Amino acid sequence: MKEFSLIDTYFKSVKYKRKDVLIGIGDDCAITQIPPGQALATTTDTLVSGVHFLADAPPRAIAQKAIAVNLSDLAAMGAEPAWISLSLTLPAIDETWLEEFSRGIQESTEYYSIELIGGDTVQGPLAITITAQGFVAPEQALTRSGAKPGDFLYVTGTLGDAGLGLDLLLNNIELPDPEHSGFLLKRLYYPTPRVFAGTSLRRVANACIDISDGLVADLKHILHASQCGAMLQLDKLPLSEAMVQSVDIHNAYRYALSGGDDYELLFSVSEEHKNSVDRALACCNVPVTCIGQLNGMSGKVNLRLHNQPYDFIDTGYEHFAPSSLLATTKDPQ
Amino acid sequence: MKEFSLIDTYFKSVKYKRKDVLIGIGDDCAITQIPPGQALATTTDTLVSGVHFLADAPPRAIAQKAIAVNLSDLAAMGAEPAWISLSLTLPAIDETWLEEFSRGIQESTEYYSIELIGGDTVQGPLAITITAQGFVAPEQALTRSGAKPGDFLYVTGTLGDAGLGLDLLLNNIELPDPEHSGFLLKRLYYPTPRVFAGTSLRRVANACIDISDGLVADLKHILHASQCGAMLQLDKLPLSEAMVQSVDIHNAYRYALSGGDDYELLFSVSEEHKNSVDRALACCNVPVTCIGQLNGMSGKVNLRLHNQPYDFIDTGYEHFAPSSLLATTKDPQ
Repeated sequence: MKEFSLIDTYFKSVKYKRKDVLIGIGDDCAITQIPPGQALATTTDTLVSGVHFLADAPPRAIAQKAIAVNLSDLAAMGAEPAWISLSLTLPAIDETWLEEFSRGIQESTEYYSIELIGGDTVQGPLAITITAQGFVAPEQALTRSGAKPGDFLYVTGTLGDAGLGLDLLLNNIELPDPEHSGFLLKRLYYPTPRVFAGTSLRRVANACIDISDGLVADLKHILHASQCGAMLQLDKLPLSEAMVQSVDIHNAYRYALSGGDDYELLFSVSEEHKNSVDRALACCNVPVTCIGQLNGMSGKVNLRLHNQPYDFIDTGYEHFAPSSLLATTKDPQ
Repeated sequence: MKEFSLIDTYFKSVKYKRKDVLIGIGDDCAITQIPPGQALATTTDTLVSGVHFLADAPPRAIAQKAIAVNLSDLAAMGAEPAWISLSLTLPAIDETWLEEFSRGIQESTEYYSIELIGGDTVQGPLAITITAQGFVAPEQALTRSGAKPGDFLYVTGTLGDAGLGLDLLLNNIELPDPEHSGFLLKRLYYPTPRVFAGTSLRRVANACIDISDGLVADLKHILHASQCGAMLQLDKLPLSEAMVQSVDIHNAYRYALSGGDDYELLFSVSEEHKNSVDRALACCNVPVTCIGQLNGMSGKVNLRLHNQPYDFIDTGYEHFAPSSLLATTKDPQ
């Protein structure tokens, strides 16, 4: 296996080019230019076969999810995505797999106007690491630590769909409505990073994080970094039609609170800016819902349903699929 | 396995801090600042257990090699290293291993004044991906494509040591002189990225690459990108004392021509700047040797020994160690 011939064949064909890339794939490094006044935002995430996806998952979905989880981190920082580097570890050369995988990379780079600037292709157990880079003015970066007691808590989209999608996949539950199953699997396989919502929130939000480990787990990262507590109103949690129609409401809350892999944004907004949220997100075509409020009870998450306390034991979200599992998966797209 | 607690425990203790890192480990992205007038250089490399190192290789060596191969790519571009991101895939939590590994990261980040700005820790077969970022003025970047017929070819250090070191390790050859074995294994385990040589060559070299796949293979990348040919004088190849004392001279040439993992720099200099090479590298404490010259015979490498043609079949360098191999390795440091 000659890594450079692989890169030549498949990844040089990923053609989206940006003007700020002076040297792209094919030299020892990529050389790129940051706009004046902007800082560089960098994030890296690895997806491992049998852990973050099943070995027979559609290669196009693997490629697009690997990009999406990284762009989601940029979005959570309010950064505009620019470039990605790809490290691909493959057990053997499978041309069909590589073609579909590179098609996935091609589509996502075009859709988000980002350029694949380099990478590495090595032999080993299937895994993908992507490093994404983007820009944000340093004073506008949305951190986890900027939340304040009294801030209102918001989320984009609907919650828990990917978690229910994973359970569908692993347990081979069949839902009566195939449209619902298709929607939930699509949410799992093809998450939508909230890129434009992230950049639109720069002037509105005090703190932001993307929900990868589950709403409560990721909220706790904000609470920990900002030394706040939170009250969540369960009856306000945004649930998809597929979720509501597929499981009872208490299970729906459980998926919404602890299901991971949703890649929605969770952010806090001061009372002063509350009226600007809808306007800021008007052009993003993403629903946004106020689900609670921050308080001074450091680290504590308080759940309420119709203004009554609600008991919930967060067992946490596990990305891990049992590696012995060989469920045949269908591409939902 | 909770990845964030792992990161907290081991990688927040990697303490080297830079002023240009506004937000480091612990948020969704790192936020960093590029100096005015500089472009960003980015490179990424993955090391897989059983392919690029043996599973029982010293964790400190794995960490330092993963950093070194990336800094070597920055050096080959003439870029000054600044920040690294680390993605670590581990089969299970082994605290002793993690302590030694993070000590390796700590030492290298301090030595090269670079900051670990983020990363990802996931469960899976042992592998390390590092993305390194640095700076170079765009007009000073050392590409593979800048070489011209007539340029003189130079290399830093000595060639073939890591290749012979790998053969020592895999075949359990014992050399009579343990000091030689120690030197060769150290060259394999702890390669020295030529960081300061790379930045010093910015105003002198026309083209540059680091030797990771072997001298001839990497020279061909320059020839291909620059549409040149090359004549190499074998009697000029810089060989270590350990190499010369351990194998016959024709085997020494073979290691020097096709042994990989040396991470020396190969660069071309026009006749006009030939006299500036020694001065440019005077403060780098690295030997540099003129080993040949470029010509117009596109893509062809011509070997000569004492001015006579020399036959050599390049079988190429394979990083791969057989994954079944379980040689017990000793840390050479």
